[in-house]
Amino acid sequence: MNPVDKIIALALEEDASHNDVTSRAVVPPTVRVKARITARQRLIVSGSAAALRVFEMIDPSVSAQLKVGDGVEVLSGDVIANIEGLARSILAGERVALNLLQQLCGVATLTREFCSAIKGTSAKIVDTRKTLPGLRALQKQAVLDGGGVNHRMSLADGVLIKDNHIAAAGSISEAVEMARRGAHHLLKIEVEVETLDGVREALGAGADVVMLDNMPVEMIAAAVKLIDGRAVVEASGGITLNNVLEVAEAGVDLISVGQLTHSAPACDISVDFMQS
Amino acid sequence: MNPVDKIIALALEEDASHNDVTSRAVVPPTVRVKARITARQRLIVSGSAAALRVFEMIDPSVSAQLKVGDGVEVLSGDVIANIEGLARSILAGERVALNLLQQLCGVATLTREFCSAIKGTSAKIVDTRKTLPGLRALQKQAVLDGGGVNHRMSLADGVLIKDNHIAAAGSISEAVEMARRGAHHLLKIEVEVETLDGVREALGAGADVVMLDNMPVEMIAAAVKLIDGRAVVEASGGITLNNVLEVAEAGVDLISVGQLTHSAPACDISVDFMQS
Amino acid sequence: MNPVDKIIALALEEDASHNDVTSRAVVPPTVRVKARITARQRLIVSGSAAALRVFEMIDPSVSAQLKVGDGVEVLSGDVIANIEGLARSILAGERVALNLLQQLCGVATLTREFCSAIKGTSAKIVDTRKTLPGLRALQKQAVLDGGGVNHRMSLADGVLIKDNHIAAAGSISEAVEMARRGAHHLLKIEVEVETLDGVREALGAGADVVMLDNMPVEMIAAAVKLIDGRAVVEASGGITLNNVLEVAEAGVDLISVGQLTHSAPACDISVDFMQS
Amino acid sequence: MNPVDKIIALALEEDASHNDVTSRAVVPPTVRVKARITARQRLIVSGSAAALRVFEMIDPSVSAQLKVGDGVEVLSGDVIANIEGLARSILAGERVALNLLQQLCGVATLTREFCSAIKGTSAKIVDTRKTLPGLRALQKQAVLDGGGVNHRMSLADGVLIKDNHIAAAGSISEAVEMARRGAHHLLKIEVEVETLDGVREALGAGADVVMLDNMPVEMIAAAVKLIDGRAVVEASGGITLNNVLEVAEAGVDLISVGQLTHSAPACDISVDFMQS
Amino acid sequence: MNPVDKIIALALEEDASHNDVTSRAVVPPTVRVKARITARQRLIVSGSAAALRVFEMIDPSVSAQLKVGDGVEVLSGDVIANIEGLARSILAGERVALNLLQQLCGVATLTREFCSAIKGTSAKIVDTRKTLPGLRALQKQAVLDGGGVNHRMSLADGVLIKDNHIAAAGSISEAVEMARRGAHHLLKIEVEVETLDGVREALGAGADVVMLDNMPVEMIAAAVKLIDGRAVVEASGGITLNNVLEVAEAGVDLISVGQLTHSAPACDISVDFMQS
Amino acid sequence: MNPVDKIIALALEEDASHNDVTSRAVVPPTVRVKARITARQRLIVSGSAAALRVFEMIDPSVSAQLKVGDGVEVLSGDVIANIEGLARSILAGERVALNLLQQLCGVATLTREFCSAIKGTSAKIVDTRKTLPGLRALQKQAVLDGGGVNHRMSLADGVLIKDNHIAAAGSISEAVEMARRGAHHLLKIEVEVETLDGVREALGAGADVVMLDNMPVEMIAAAVKLIDGRAVVEASGGITLNNVLEVAEAGVDLISVGQLTHSAPACDISVDFMQS
Repeated sequence: MNPVDKIIALALEEDASHNDVTSRAVVPPTVRVKARITARQRLIVSGSAAALRVFEMIDPSVSAQLKVGDGVEVLSGDVIANIEGLARSILAGERVALNLLQQLCGVATLTREFCSAIKGTSAKIVDTRKTLPGLRALQKQAVLDGGGVNHRMSLADGVLIKDNHIAAAGSISEAVEMARRGAHHLLKIEVEVETLDGVREALGAGADVVMLDNMPVEMIAAAVKLIDGRAVVEASGGITLNNVLEVAEAGVDLISVGQLTHSAPACDISVDFMQS
Repeated sequence: MNPVDKIIALALEEDASHNDVTSRAVVPPTVRVKARITARQRLIVSGSAAALRVFEMIDPSVSAQLKVGDGVEVLSGDVIANIEGLARSILAGERVALNLLQQLCGVATLTREFCSAIKGTSAKIVDTRKTLPGLRALQKQAVLDGGGVNHRMSLADGVLIKDNHIAAAGSISEAVEMARRGAHHLLKIEVEVETLDGVREALGAGADVVMLDNMPVEMIAAAVKLIDGRAVVEASGGITLNNVLEVAEAGVDLISVGQLTHSAPACDISVDFMQS
Repeated sequence: MNPVDKIIALALEEDASHNDVTSRAVVPPTVRVKARITARQRLIVSGSAAALRVFEMIDPSVSAQLKVGDGVEVLSGDVIANIEGLARSILAGERVALNLLQQLCGVATLTREFCSAIKGTSAKIVDTRKTLPGLRALQKQAVLDGGGVNHRMSLADGVLIKDNHIAAAGSISEAVEMARRGAHHLLKIEVEVETLDGVREALGAGADVVMLDNMPVEMIAAAVKLIDGRAVVEASGGITLNNVLEVAEAGVDLISVGQLTHSAPACDISVDFMQS
Repeated sequence: MNPVDKIIALALEEDASHNDVTSRAVVPPTVRVKARITARQRLIVSGSAAALRVFEMIDPSVSAQLKVGDGVEVLSGDVIANIEGLARSILAGERVALNLLQQLCGVATLTREFCSAIKGTSAKIVDTRKTLPGLRALQKQAVLDGGGVNHRMSLADGVLIKDNHIAAAGSISEAVEMARRGAHHLLKIEVEVETLDGVREALGAGADVVMLDNMPVEMIAAAVKLIDGRAVVEASGGITLNNVLEVAEAGVDLISVGQLTHSAPACDISVDFMQS
Repeated sequence: MNPVDKIIALALEEDASHNDVTSRAVVPPTVRVKARITARQRLIVSGSAAALRVFEMIDPSVSAQLKVGDGVEVLSGDVIANIEGLARSILAGERVALNLLQQLCGVATLTREFCSAIKGTSAKIVDTRKTLPGLRALQKQAVLDGGGVNHRMSLADGVLIKDNHIAAAGSISEAVEMARRGAHHLLKIEVEVETLDGVREALGAGADVVMLDNMPVEMIAAAVKLIDGRAVVEASGGITLNNVLEVAEAGVDLISVGQLTHSAPACDISVDFMQS
Repeated sequence: MNPVDKIIALALEEDASHNDVTSRAVVPPTVRVKARITARQRLIVSGSAAALRVFEMIDPSVSAQLKVGDGVEVLSGDVIANIEGLARSILAGERVALNLLQQLCGVATLTREFCSAIKGTSAKIVDTRKTLPGLRALQKQAVLDGGGVNHRMSLADGVLIKDNHIAAAGSISEAVEMARRGAHHLLKIEVEVETLDGVREALGAGADVVMLDNMPVEMIAAAVKLIDGRAVVEASGGITLNNVLEVAEAGVDLISVGQLTHSAPACDISVDFMQS
């Protein structure tokens, strides 16, 4: 079972979609309906396939048609998808589908705002591993849909040496050296530093990427100068829509924003039944 | 497997906690550490058991000690829990544990704000089914920890008749009648209405609970008067920290707030390793 | 995976349906057959969809056609469904399908007998949580098919306060009060009592439903009189086809019968291959 | 996960043991109790380990002590096991544990009756694959506990050629020949026959076991004579406590009884909390 | 889920087939391709259905057509199957499909070599339980495809008494006697012996099959003579392509070869994309 | 469940370890034994923890003690681990544990041979994704235990552009460019080439690693010269113990060998019960 099906299955299970007591009591079993998934605010679409997959997992006879692709901006009132099928099946899945879609559109929409805020600079907005449990893959795709780029997907597909690793290894140099020996040859090595001295050590150790953690903008600019193209530069920590532009203008390559995935407000989206 | 273990397992899987390439390369396998989970802002604790369960699922030899109970307010710098064990195990679980804890403390903290906002009224803040996929049970507990109360847990433990059900049944009266026959005798019947006429019909049909959907405050007050204690009254839709007090003062029993669970911003919490 | 698929999967696994050594040795892989599921006694049909789902889970190319709906009475010799497909697939699923169907028809048939026994009274036959492991949802549906009504589905969708809860809480009143505060607003509260004093306390505490546990018929009648419509009345314990009518005539609303689901004898049903 | 844990997990899930709304509202989280599992009728114990496993799966801190072994006869009032732990944990598992135990004791007790009925003959009571979904292994063990013996566990561990196989193969001889070639060398071959001619053909083909299906007792006796020790003889079909002795006295080796596992009435057993 | 789907699901999961970063970056999502699975050496085909099932599990819209059946010998350059579908889907499954197919063809091919080596004798090549974890059913089928026969599938479908069992039981006779009483009537009893005395005891105890463990060829011949048709004779231990013929000529019925399944070298097979 | 537990669970299930008919019939339930896992040939140990985990999963009361660590060379007769517990538990897990251990020691032992063959050169032996289904993580660890290094673990943790990707993208340059944009910043890009022209293009495109696929040794040497340290160089295809040294001496950094994981012969290891 792929990761998307897993989280949908869990969501359907916790919502007891197989035992919708209201619909079973009130809606006759053979009634069919058409419904529309409609945006109730300006938003960037993401997760539409997952939302429709919810209905398919409940009842393969539900049919659905996407009206806009992921990554597209829609306005309030725009239809995202049409659905048709047994009323009971659509009612059973409606909430879970919306819960997914509202979250993921939220991520994409917030990402788009961050991307717009740094338009014209060479920096890119990048996500983190601060994702909601079970939604990693979908949220990372939402970041792409919003115009951002992805950081590593998990602990397995990139080396990121943080302070605790450095403490365990003894020094940045030793940590980088151990990582180079221990990790396979297709993984780059990123080192998180908090000072310019840290930047120098990381560079000296041959880090491929330097993450500037929670630095003031001036220090970021100094670090970029120091690095001078010898490593990719990522700024991280405390970045908001208010300060992201100045961080970008300091010359970093990547700006990672945990908020994109841990705190994006849900978008307003509804499922409306159409008169038949 | 209980619901909490399921979502943790999914989160660990998507984070590839069994294949932390950085720690495997840089941290010797037998190094043990002590660490603290520390609040970095004022917040209401929730989800602490789930967060510690993350480490236990990775490595049963990790030991942990909670310092404050769920539902308690802590300040920036306060220690929520102490952990001790193999550095690799703690590093492998740190992010997943924090992702859970930050989310759930976020829900509890936001709930507490809503509860404070209506202090002195007889209304209660109640959650919805607008929860994050896989986190239903934990988020609902976080609402309790924040001082709110729970609405139904799923489609199976309460009858909630909405417009689509009414349309399928023909009228509010018919829908309520069908629900009374079809649902078992321990479930109450709630009806969602949008007008005062709807309120009258629901009352006439014998609804146990009337949900006032997206009504202006004046209409809510009129509905409360009309209902006059003959049914529990729930206000729903468009409720924010700005308007929740006037809704409460309009005399409703329950105020449901989707935002609690779909848009609570994550709290700032860290895992810090202690010098050994 | 929904609950029905889960128990079927378990049943197929324990029967090693993927490794039917007899059919693999004796039946050529491409032989197709038509078969009929036939009642061998008078019975009420239930579980037919689950029975056919067995074949579909083994081999989606098996086709089946139901001849009678669930809840319908059939006589010995009546065909319940026709099946067509690879002989190996049908042989692999035959026993599991019949095991399910015979059990569920057994439940529906026994329920129908109880319902017939109290015909003309206002009481209803209701099931319990004394179900066979893994078959809860299917057996509860079988009770409906037999003409009964359902009690709560699980521990989560109704409050039922029993003696152990009362002991823990201190008194009936305290237990009901705690339940009202602790359970959500769509759940009614039922209290199990064994004496008329218990009935009075439960009423006084505002119980929505009073369960009269193992009371003699005279006491049941007295309790009904005492309650006088202020609560739903359920009789429970020791009820058989011999005494169910007098319990019904005592005026209770619900008569719960554990035997329906824990001891219904299987019905006699066969799968017959037709000459091709 | 072994088969016993699987069916318990399913039963706990369908009973929502993790969300016992009554106990959570009414029973304080730290209250501990002692309880006894007590027989309320004369019965043969079976499934006690599975019943206790229910509590262990909910809460490993529950401790339990078996007072009698499986296969032992107890009288009404006899204690089967003592349990001690958190009240909430025991209340959450009580029903599922009893559902299992009552069923399995029912199977063992009924089996014992059949065994007693044929005492003194050389026949043995044997089970079938007509078991309740998910309970195969436990019910087969209950048959052993009752004094019976097991037939094959599944489609994979024995060759049993029935009429449909014979039709597909062309004749009994061909079917047996194909089975001997196709099944591995540790599996014996049993053939189901309905006539004395069938018996002769099966013998001629070298069947290891002959199953006499639904034969009148006189024909069974004739078949036994005919077979004369050259094959194991199993009688099957329509056997009840009323006729089992005459079938046994006809000289068969095995008497298979579907009723043991598909229709055994549940035994009466209770969980009682002790005053603390 | 059947055993084949289970191991494929595990293989796809460990290969992260849902997150093929290369194809996602480089191959447009709608590109379709035709591909061929081609033998790169002389081999016996086995596992082709499982290999194609890999693609179906990733993407049901991939279509495939087998060109040769399992058990058939093909030469280098021969096409085993044609596949057509989205390039991303085929690339995502290619390695897992080949890993399965190369292994299983390896088993079938090695089995065929052993069978050819003893051609003309009455012995058969039989597999063991020394299979690769998760591949039991597929490897056993590959042995059939190669021309061998199967031994028991698992611990559950045959009694095989080894030295440790004999030690626990006290003697061969006691062990056989206990097995006859304890195992069901469709299972034969095989005893592993290392000496001619062991052979005599096993025969005396009525073993159905005698396994000659690690005996020199002369002793095997003596054992066969001694047994003289009163039991099936299996030779086991240390058998290679070099000595298998002399073991067969010693007159045994079965020659079991662990190497078939634990050490068969993978065959060379490729997936080639065709110019479109 | 981590990947190791998953494959063990599958292996135990397919071996029906919960239903060992022989041991249940012949070995009394309370008999305890001591046993030793002993090497029967010179080998490099790997997978010992997984092998012991088998017994723990069957029966947590089995205790085990490793005598040598993974990666260590042992000789025939050396004890790898001691085990103690119920005879039935050890017999139930013995075969599955050995199947795992023999395979993984086989991989480590073969890897060690390849490493020894190139001793003194600067090349390293590296594995591939040509692993046995379900055993990826364990086999990759076995390669490390044997002295090799790992290539990427899955499709997700490294970019490897092969001919099919190049065809889809249009050219090597375009493929590399797309990969750089599409893959995250911690992944390096490897390109598989078959000619010196391919090498040039890959270098020009900025590939981090160049895989020389199936090149003759002379061409490999020329490629190494051409690359001249500007990229990591991996040789792949057709490498055996006979030619690995000359490939290493041609100056490549990595030599990938599929045979390590797809065709390593099992090592000879036994579980011996000790006299008590």
